[in-house]
Amino acid sequence: MKRILVDMDGVLVDIYPMFFKLHEQETGQRLNIKDIAGQLEEEAFPNQRKWVSTPGFFQSLPVMQDSRESLMRLNNFYKVIVVSLATEFPYCLTDKLLWLNDNFPFISWQQIVFSGDKNIIKADIMIDDHFKNLDHFKGRTILFTQPHNILIRNSSHTRVSSWAEIEKLLLP
Amino acid sequence: MKRILVDMDGVLVDIYPMFFKLHEQETGQRLNIKDIAGQLEEEAFPNQRKWVSTPGFFQSLPVMQDSRESLMRLNNFYKVIVVSLATEFPYCLTDKLLWLNDNFPFISWQQIVFSGDKNIIKADIMIDDHFKNLDHFKGRTILFTQPHNILIRNSSHTRVSSWAEIEKLLLP
Repeated sequence: MKRILVDMDGVLVDIYPMFFKLHEQETGQRLNIKDIAGQLEEEAFPNQRKWVSTPGFFQSLPVMQDSRESLMRLNNFYKVIVVSLATEFPYCLTDKLLWLNDNFPFISWQQIVFSGDKNIIKADIMIDDHFKNLDHFKGRTILFTQPHNILIRNSSHTRVSSWAEIEKLLLP
Repeated sequence: MKRILVDMDGVLVDIYPMFFKLHEQETGQRLNIKDIAGQLEEEAFPNQRKWVSTPGFFQSLPVMQDSRESLMRLNNFYKVIVVSLATEFPYCLTDKLLWLNDNFPFISWQQIVFSGDKNIIKADIMIDDHFKNLDHFKGRTILFTQPHNILIRNSSHTRVSSWAEIEKLLLP
């Protein structure tokens, strides 16, 4: 059974709506996707590092559309590992695990990794929204469209914009 | 540079003194190492799973003797990754990262992994006190003596009982 690494933020977690909301609350400025296209999260939202290091931030975030149902199906055909680059911010770790347990209860604790480096994990397929993770991965790479990566048209990764597209690529 | 996986509990964290103390507080029974030799932690201490799932438990544990200085030296010759099988208990994750940041500040967040499965991590050497982790590892394996593993005399792993012994094995 092939092993898939599935990212959390921007892939299972629909994180941008909260970034837009907090940015407007704190600055009064209402941004949209066009305003921040091509900028990394911390460039688009100057307070982003403060938000993600706040206890509780990750617990209330919405699930990415269709991701729960799709991951449940993928879980029958692959060894799914949910992996998040999360060891920079101590309080997000507990919040992220509670969020996974609440929203993806079919993912066992043995299938979860919080790592400071994704490229030390053995796997066949990576689904991620960040080039910093995908570019160094030796297996098959699937880029999930998010505002920060939307302007890069040519890469060696297969771009998808929905979990339905991931299912088409990976399910029989 | 070779990559070493270094376990936390029972290798960097001297966890048994707290188990003995809590067991005595809760049962009135004073145990020593001989009483529990060969028993896994959860067999020796019936309340162990309750303790390790309690917020704050991991924050006050002592550092294993000499481990800080030895790991600092190893960090010059190897790519050190501290890895803990910690995704079963949500509250221990934040506590363990805060503990590492306090006690091993020279270990960067990129060198930390909390995983539900250690055998998906690519590495050359593993230092651990549990056979469940060492037995499936493809590289060089170093078994750190702890009460639960002390009765098993014949294994394919190199047994050590101190960080001084680890330095002798791994430093030039």
